[in-house]
Amino acid sequence: MRTQVAIIGSGPSGLLLGALLTDAGIDNVILERVDRAYILKRIRAGVLETGTAELLDQAGAGARMHAEGLVHDGISLAFDGRLHRIDLKVLSGKHVIVYGQTELTRDLMDHREERGGKTIYDAQNVTPHDFGTVGAFVTYEKDGITHRIDCDFIAGCDGFHGASRKAVEDMGLSHFEKVYPFGWLGVLADVAPVHHELIYANHARGFALCSQRSATRSRYYVQVPLEDTVEQWSDDTFWDELRRRLPRETAEALKTAPSIEKSIAPLRSYVAEPLRFGKLFLVGDAGHIVPPTGAKGLNLAASDVHYLFEGLWDHYLEKSMAGIDAYSARALSRIWKAERFSWSMTSLLHRFPAHGEFDRKVQEAELDYLSHSLAAQTSVAENYVGLAY
Amino acid sequence: MRTQVAIIGSGPSGLLLGALLTDAGIDNVILERVDRAYILKRIRAGVLETGTAELLDQAGAGARMHAEGLVHDGISLAFDGRLHRIDLKVLSGKHVIVYGQTELTRDLMDHREERGGKTIYDAQNVTPHDFGTVGAFVTYEKDGITHRIDCDFIAGCDGFHGASRKAVEDMGLSHFEKVYPFGWLGVLADVAPVHHELIYANHARGFALCSQRSATRSRYYVQVPLEDTVEQWSDDTFWDELRRRLPRETAEALKTAPSIEKSIAPLRSYVAEPLRFGKLFLVGDAGHIVPPTGAKGLNLAASDVHYLFEGLWDHYLEKSMAGIDAYSARALSRIWKAERFSWSMTSLLHRFPAHGEFDRKVQEAELDYLSHSLAAQTSVAENYVGLAY
Repeated sequence: MRTQVAIIGSGPSGLLLGALLTDAGIDNVILERVDRAYILKRIRAGVLETGTAELLDQAGAGARMHAEGLVHDGISLAFDGRLHRIDLKVLSGKHVIVYGQTELTRDLMDHREERGGKTIYDAQNVTPHDFGTVGAFVTYEKDGITHRIDCDFIAGCDGFHGASRKAVEDMGLSHFEKVYPFGWLGVLADVAPVHHELIYANHARGFALCSQRSATRSRYYVQVPLEDTVEQWSDDTFWDELRRRLPRETAEALKTAPSIEKSIAPLRSYVAEPLRFGKLFLVGDAGHIVPPTGAKGLNLAASDVHYLFEGLWDHYLEKSMAGIDAYSARALSRIWKAERFSWSMTSLLHRFPAHGEFDRKVQEAELDYLSHSLAAQTSVAENYVGLAY
Repeated sequence: MRTQVAIIGSGPSGLLLGALLTDAGIDNVILERVDRAYILKRIRAGVLETGTAELLDQAGAGARMHAEGLVHDGISLAFDGRLHRIDLKVLSGKHVIVYGQTELTRDLMDHREERGGKTIYDAQNVTPHDFGTVGAFVTYEKDGITHRIDCDFIAGCDGFHGASRKAVEDMGLSHFEKVYPFGWLGVLADVAPVHHELIYANHARGFALCSQRSATRSRYYVQVPLEDTVEQWSDDTFWDELRRRLPRETAEALKTAPSIEKSIAPLRSYVAEPLRFGKLFLVGDAGHIVPPTGAKGLNLAASDVHYLFEGLWDHYLEKSMAGIDAYSARALSRIWKAERFSWSMTSLLHRFPAHGEFDRKVQEAELDYLSHSLAAQTSVAENYVGLAY
């Protein structure tokens, strides 16, 4: 088989890139290790920057997001026993849209089926080959048979543990990493959110986050030691701990329900450089990870897709390599700013075991300053809604 | 002898408080360990916030500062081989005044002499007593004789190593401290400054600062390991190292001259809490230290004086203890924000031996973000010119 762009991975970045390429008349095939149903079972956050929503519109897949997504004009930080709102709309002129990543993935899959885009599910051992030359190709196994797809370019959209980054590990890839000394215990429950916007809480017992997927489905998190296991945390223990970390009025308003998902995720910052090796591009989680505190993971995948699509458009429609040559640097410039923001929000809101009393007081002073300074709030807001592409 | 307020220390904070009290008709005596000439030989920075300048005017001692001080409407950060200006005036509506601390001290001393304020120099073993009761007094030795001054209040303006904080060490004083793994090697030279405003440089070889005392006297610094000694650094070695850390155009414009002072200072963040023990108040460096990166040390001393003077005014002229009871909390709220700013500027601009590659990239991303974001620049500017009292 031959295609112009072989896309490895059918998550949001692969699907979004596929949709944009298909619309532009650029042939592409998506190779996915698992099946559609498996992908749609993954529970992921979904706070969409304006730019991400626009990209979904550009791909023609934004209708349900606009109909069902929740527009949030602000977020609140909780500390000192009360909520301190940051008015995203007033301070940045933009908002975010809360729309589950699973829903966004479903929309893009449906869109791809409607347009006749080709996706090969259950493709095992997907491997990029010869991307340093003009003869790039991808192999995969299915039903015991090895297949080969010849292509111009390979988009590695296969996540942190995927084959794409592994293929370039020995080619001078640099790694930048920070691991945080705690995790997030998350609970999903079919119950109305405690607040109409997200609440990020800094409390002496640790960080907590009140998030949501819809008007009837809530997602809550509490910071836990890395050694903790889900089995240690009954639903009741979780709700009690969450209440303790919220301002009293918020805690009293919290409605609970049996958890429909409960898991502990570690927090990590990671960037690979560069993001291009000849004809192979690393996109989204394949190239970088952020701790979830800034809600940037999905949005960075989208901005990578934006830059890569511009490069491929330039190549196929303008016969220019300029956009492709610029991909890595342009994407990384924005990625590092988001890494900085995610690290800084994580540092501001969590309790660090190694923090001394001075660090704790500085953290309190920063929250105090932030709650009084429009400039500091504007800085948080412009990062939260997403810096310009 | 009896006075209303005994002030320990004849540095800027003690002198400023004395001037304000004298003008308000509140009797005060300053006790100083050394003599006038010794104090006026101390070399200290002098970047005055608007609020500090206003306080000096309020004390009636601002005339020479306005005549000779240099109004700076901006500062520059140097990184990536060029200057990135932060327009303090446009972003915050305020400026800073570069005016050496030594000059400010001289003005306040002259002002005190003119008004007939009482200062006892060469007062040895100054010790505050019984400040937990109504019978507070201070003892000191001079010419072999022990003297006693009875007073209503004691203002501890005697710096980090002074007797005032020592007197309360065992009374439940809390300490918050951070020591940085580097020092500043500073050189003073009678030569025109390389730039009309201050330059804070982040360079792979370490931090550098181009500062100034006047149009003909420059003060330059480079970050050095704590183990370094002044003897290791000849003038030529210093100027060469400074040039290497500056953008090329700046380095080429640098004029040098023999150093008239050269020293290495460690960097430290320190706060004592509370700042009031009965009738005794800790003011300025007696209660807190900042690394010099944010130019906040002298200005924090001034804001302490502002809060304490308001409290004493309330007490003597309004018969209210409200301002005195609020002194510690009001001063500390502003101090911690300045500690945060000084820590954050120090973190942003220095090379830390313990920093991994990720931390370095985040630092670069922060500089990149700062140089492109008006909100982030406004946040730096409003802190640099001084947050509202």
